[in-house]
Amino acid sequence: MKKQFLLIVLCCTIGVAVTAQKSDHTHALGTSMDFPNILGYKTLKCDFHQHTVFSDGDVWPSIRVRESLMDNLDAISLTEHIEYQPHLGDIPHKDRNRSYQIALKEAKDHDLIIVKGSEITRAMPPGHSNAIFIEDPNKLIVTDFKDAYREANRQKAFVFWNHSYETPKNDNISFLYEANKQLMDSNYIHGIEVVNTHTYSTEALQIAYDKNLTLMGTSDVHGLIDWDYKNGPKGHRPITLVFSKDRSQESIKSALFDRRTVVHFDNTLIGRDSLLIPLINECLVIKKAFYEPKSLVLSVEVENVSSCNFILQNQSPYSLIESSDMIEIEGKSTMTLHFRTKEKINQLDWSFNVLNAVNAPNKHPMVTKNIVVNSGK
Amino acid sequence: MKKQFLLIVLCCTIGVAVTAQKSDHTHALGTSMDFPNILGYKTLKCDFHQHTVFSDGDVWPSIRVRESLMDNLDAISLTEHIEYQPHLGDIPHKDRNRSYQIALKEAKDHDLIIVKGSEITRAMPPGHSNAIFIEDPNKLIVTDFKDAYREANRQKAFVFWNHSYETPKNDNISFLYEANKQLMDSNYIHGIEVVNTHTYSTEALQIAYDKNLTLMGTSDVHGLIDWDYKNGPKGHRPITLVFSKDRSQESIKSALFDRRTVVHFDNTLIGRDSLLIPLINECLVIKKAFYEPKSLVLSVEVENVSSCNFILQNQSPYSLIESSDMIEIEGKSTMTLHFRTKEKINQLDWSFNVLNAVNAPNKHPMVTKNIVVNSGK
Amino acid sequence: MKKQFLLIVLCCTIGVAVTAQKSDHTHALGTSMDFPNILGYKTLKCDFHQHTVFSDGDVWPSIRVRESLMDNLDAISLTEHIEYQPHLGDIPHKDRNRSYQIALKEAKDHDLIIVKGSEITRAMPPGHSNAIFIEDPNKLIVTDFKDAYREANRQKAFVFWNHSYETPKNDNISFLYEANKQLMDSNYIHGIEVVNTHTYSTEALQIAYDKNLTLMGTSDVHGLIDWDYKNGPKGHRPITLVFSKDRSQESIKSALFDRRTVVHFDNTLIGRDSLLIPLINECLVIKKAFYEPKSLVLSVEVENVSSCNFILQNQSPYSLIESSDMIEIEGKSTMTLHFRTKEKINQLDWSFNVLNAVNAPNKHPMVTKNIVVNSGK
Amino acid sequence: MKKQFLLIVLCCTIGVAVTAQKSDHTHALGTSMDFPNILGYKTLKCDFHQHTVFSDGDVWPSIRVRESLMDNLDAISLTEHIEYQPHLGDIPHKDRNRSYQIALKEAKDHDLIIVKGSEITRAMPPGHSNAIFIEDPNKLIVTDFKDAYREANRQKAFVFWNHSYETPKNDNISFLYEANKQLMDSNYIHGIEVVNTHTYSTEALQIAYDKNLTLMGTSDVHGLIDWDYKNGPKGHRPITLVFSKDRSQESIKSALFDRRTVVHFDNTLIGRDSLLIPLINECLVIKKAFYEPKSLVLSVEVENVSSCNFILQNQSPYSLIESSDMIEIEGKSTMTLHFRTKEKINQLDWSFNVLNAVNAPNKHPMVTKNIVVNSGK
Repeated sequence: MKKQFLLIVLCCTIGVAVTAQKSDHTHALGTSMDFPNILGYKTLKCDFHQHTVFSDGDVWPSIRVRESLMDNLDAISLTEHIEYQPHLGDIPHKDRNRSYQIALKEAKDHDLIIVKGSEITRAMPPGHSNAIFIEDPNKLIVTDFKDAYREANRQKAFVFWNHSYETPKNDNISFLYEANKQLMDSNYIHGIEVVNTHTYSTEALQIAYDKNLTLMGTSDVHGLIDWDYKNGPKGHRPITLVFSKDRSQESIKSALFDRRTVVHFDNTLIGRDSLLIPLINECLVIKKAFYEPKSLVLSVEVENVSSCNFILQNQSPYSLIESSDMIEIEGKSTMTLHFRTKEKINQLDWSFNVLNAVNAPNKHPMVTKNIVVNSGK
Repeated sequence: MKKQFLLIVLCCTIGVAVTAQKSDHTHALGTSMDFPNILGYKTLKCDFHQHTVFSDGDVWPSIRVRESLMDNLDAISLTEHIEYQPHLGDIPHKDRNRSYQIALKEAKDHDLIIVKGSEITRAMPPGHSNAIFIEDPNKLIVTDFKDAYREANRQKAFVFWNHSYETPKNDNISFLYEANKQLMDSNYIHGIEVVNTHTYSTEALQIAYDKNLTLMGTSDVHGLIDWDYKNGPKGHRPITLVFSKDRSQESIKSALFDRRTVVHFDNTLIGRDSLLIPLINECLVIKKAFYEPKSLVLSVEVENVSSCNFILQNQSPYSLIESSDMIEIEGKSTMTLHFRTKEKINQLDWSFNVLNAVNAPNKHPMVTKNIVVNSGK
Repeated sequence: MKKQFLLIVLCCTIGVAVTAQKSDHTHALGTSMDFPNILGYKTLKCDFHQHTVFSDGDVWPSIRVRESLMDNLDAISLTEHIEYQPHLGDIPHKDRNRSYQIALKEAKDHDLIIVKGSEITRAMPPGHSNAIFIEDPNKLIVTDFKDAYREANRQKAFVFWNHSYETPKNDNISFLYEANKQLMDSNYIHGIEVVNTHTYSTEALQIAYDKNLTLMGTSDVHGLIDWDYKNGPKGHRPITLVFSKDRSQESIKSALFDRRTVVHFDNTLIGRDSLLIPLINECLVIKKAFYEPKSLVLSVEVENVSSCNFILQNQSPYSLIESSDMIEIEGKSTMTLHFRTKEKINQLDWSFNVLNAVNAPNKHPMVTKNIVVNSGK
Repeated sequence: MKKQFLLIVLCCTIGVAVTAQKSDHTHALGTSMDFPNILGYKTLKCDFHQHTVFSDGDVWPSIRVRESLMDNLDAISLTEHIEYQPHLGDIPHKDRNRSYQIALKEAKDHDLIIVKGSEITRAMPPGHSNAIFIEDPNKLIVTDFKDAYREANRQKAFVFWNHSYETPKNDNISFLYEANKQLMDSNYIHGIEVVNTHTYSTEALQIAYDKNLTLMGTSDVHGLIDWDYKNGPKGHRPITLVFSKDRSQESIKSALFDRRTVVHFDNTLIGRDSLLIPLINECLVIKKAFYEPKSLVLSVEVENVSSCNFILQNQSPYSLIESSDMIEIEGKSTMTLHFRTKEKINQLDWSFNVLNAVNAPNKHPMVTKNIVVNSGK
């Protein structure tokens, strides 16, 4: 049975008790992903690449909204393929806004931003790109792919290149074809997926740096988020962290054009140092630093306020009591480190490499936290 | 991206490696429900009440097939509402066989039987009924509800009354209206849901006995099985165990008409003694019965081969060492019970009430197992 | 290394940091057992049968104290065997108070009551008895067992018969030998273990009722509590709940002589109705009772404030929506039950059998809770 | 009750059934630590620093044996303090072999080697050292510490310096005092703890290399292994992996003198490259390497046969599809890596740094595995 239906057909309400009970069964679902705000910006969790039955996905748009609410996301886009419509025989929609409209209605009473978007879906090159913050997807239905990109940009869309590693050569290596170069040179492409589903493309990261593009990470979900990610090693979908002035479509769009993103993927953070280092700095909070009486061992209490497990490599001259130079701080936990400082010191510039963060292909950022020693306890 | 799509559009295969990897993430999903065969019949796990976007469900039929494969079901039916079609604006299907056809295609290479069915959806009375094993759902689109039931029976469908407790009075108590009585007297209704979603109707069970109907339990899923059931206390959807000559549509249909079912719901088994008691008997297997040297305590090793947790109340004259008369044997486990028999005995007719089984409203079956004592060890 | 030792030998403190860190590793240990106070009494968790290296146990008394603190007990007794001293060659203690003294010192800064006790250890009959709240165990070293019981009583000890089912017949059936009868007739024995380690003796319960004895449940631990109980089905040691005026030795002793106990064993509560029913009543708290608008289904929110999982059998005339008459309410959880009351009612005397409680051999108490229906929400 | 006791005192056996049942409760205890054999040696798991009530520990030696059996160790030593005997008032043992003898008896029917040892316990310098494979601990009771070391060496003991970081300065930094230097120069000390309880001393590792000492890791347990380690982040006690010709005392002793050890601590392996690299090589087994049809991505199936979680940093020129250069392979699991090789290659010398292994202070070994590509599938 279904409530709204019975309201209409039977002209009576069903047992609310049963409805209430059902909700009990879902309260613990979803993946908690938590990151602090940085640099005066709000850190928004976004997944701007998703599909529904309105292109080649397997679910009604309502499921995408509910999945996103369970994952506590801030903004999503249902980016149906413009050119690929395998369900068109069953769902002969002429207006490509339908998926968006249904999602909007489902999200009505919730704090989830639905961004209008579509996937321009062409053979490689230039491959696929998502255009989000568009006005009208119907106008992207054109013959020449250049016209599609032109129209998207005319609508002031933010456009990013999807799974650039899906080349005809089948080597999974992102490659900048002439067609892609031209689109970039025309300033028609503003971002690039460095992560799509379970794939991280280190070559895409290099292209992003070479071409000054925004880094994007997306689920590109077609089936169910739970089935694709919940049983995986890290249990969460890839998302793009967007550092936005506020929680509005306008600000998110600005942030994207301004390249204010970090990709969060399988417990890994991928981004430019200018954002990645402040983010890590806010994730790891020094709560206390002190010497126990008569001890020359410096105790430093670190709280990881994020949901990410941090894997750090100590770079300070002082060794640690309980571990080698490798330190693992689980998400949402507090850990006390003990440094052998030889003498009592008043402050420590503690440097460490963050191995679960990537600031360039095969590179990991070094972060330095200034620790002021006080009685603290 | 999606494989078959890229094959067509891009004329090249994507990295199979990635596809292979994805399957790694889903291998542990689903709920294992295991029951032994009984009385020369195969025990088949069936869910004959499910919805998709082709009526008021939230998913494409492919998801229902994959959910059922994860739960290791034997047979399902996608029983779209005949009269309630909220997505008709988007999915203007004229042929009500579409949902079935898509599921059939998805299940092609799997061992899952797809039964053609539909939900005759009228205000109460007579309320909703599922007609399964129908020939053509399109012919059920008629004005008078009696004609719908007549047509279903003309097609030799098996018809069962759904969530009979959803009355206009809103008291959640199944009630036999005149309309329902007439349908039953005409032999147009052959079964009744005693369990639908999270509701067990003890009154429906009484009606089943009064009217000699087949007992049915169904998920009536609209959203996702995972969300509705996986986080619940027992973690599984309601199913109907069908005791069938073999694994064919014909035999399942015969079994249903012959009332050879037991409902499995939240770790509870609901059925007639003639099937319920043999089922419990096969679930609980005596592996060994013996006395340790110099001891007058009888050790009895019991294996629960089912996935059900059994809650038994000992009725033998002999008390147990490790517990009161209440015994809990977890699913898929072996337990050794120790009876104080005072003297060495050669055999024991061990009787117990099975509290997680129901053979009539507020009644639990008593089962007796003959235990032959031997050296055994 | 060990801290106090190094303080002495090395004349310097070791790194306190390391000590602090170690405690981090133990914070989640132990089993939480929680029960509410009843009838103006405090509900104290007690284990009055334990052994250390000072008889045939495997640990120093300090371990027993720390285990008890982890299990959050209120009172314990280390009841070394008077007559059985297998470690006497290594530990030639002449003063049988040593075990008690060491425990007392270990418990000094904690809220754990150490009761002085000993186990009078004779062949059956009369078997073993614990004498607790004794003045001097040394005086129990006498030849004739009657003298030992006489002396214990002279010291005003509370004496209870241990594992009475350990008879020479080896049938695990408690039997009242002439010797035991005489001790009871002399009023030398005041209690009896109905539970010892993993054994529940229904015959001992009958003896307790026949002879008006206090019901006792004990771990009789020799090795480690963790090894004996933490991996068991219910994960806790047997304890005696003592309903005591306050948290003092005197009050506990009074309560024991007054038979104010309930035994808590493998999730089962064993006791006399006069205490058992109030205890269950306080464990299960009605938080709300209300009708949803337009519904005739009564919602009743029940909070189980105890750590016990309750297994109830509904005896009200109203059936439940989500289950058969069997209801399981997990420890420390809240559950909403939905009764089909047919009409709106203002109050309900809800009766149920408590299957995880025992008030007599093979009997379970019936409890009635008065539920007043109000808007509540 | 306790079985052997009742056998003696009551001249009858107790219910074997109860004994059998108890063992059910302990079968899942202990920590599985698994490592493959290497270089023709057997890899033996050893903990050569433990205490009981016969010095300042809290348990009877039997508990140490049972803990070690649960952890599936191969060899242990109960190294009671020679000079520190806080329980001497209660346990006035004159023969310092008692602890060893009791352990030997307890281990009689098990496959656990008990090595005779003692802890020479002096103020720093020179601090504490364990002498294992001694003949007679009683002869180590001498006034001058040099005589104690001389006697241990006369007995052909293997001697290692304990928790060298416990200096009077209280800075937790291992320091080579003149006294220690002299003992080493006299060849009286053969090994050094680089790990003791929860402390890893990078400075001790340096001393080991400077002085060519055997690397040791020990629990130095005084209380319970479960309490100290089971709730810790990695859940296991520190052990010394000894690479021994066979499973005999003689061979283990030879291996120790020959420095054939790797320390296993909190999921970290600490050792010399000559042993560490072969060990890692045997832990990580290449099962398959192949290209899927039409793909240029190399699939490599790696099985981690050890219980250690490996954290690898890819050093090959080929990037990975599913991750950055950081790879985590859980203990006892198989993982498929996907390398972007651009072209089909026939073999790959795959190099990676092993971040959970330490071959020198703040250094991690690089391991290269030769992968031969074949159809494999």
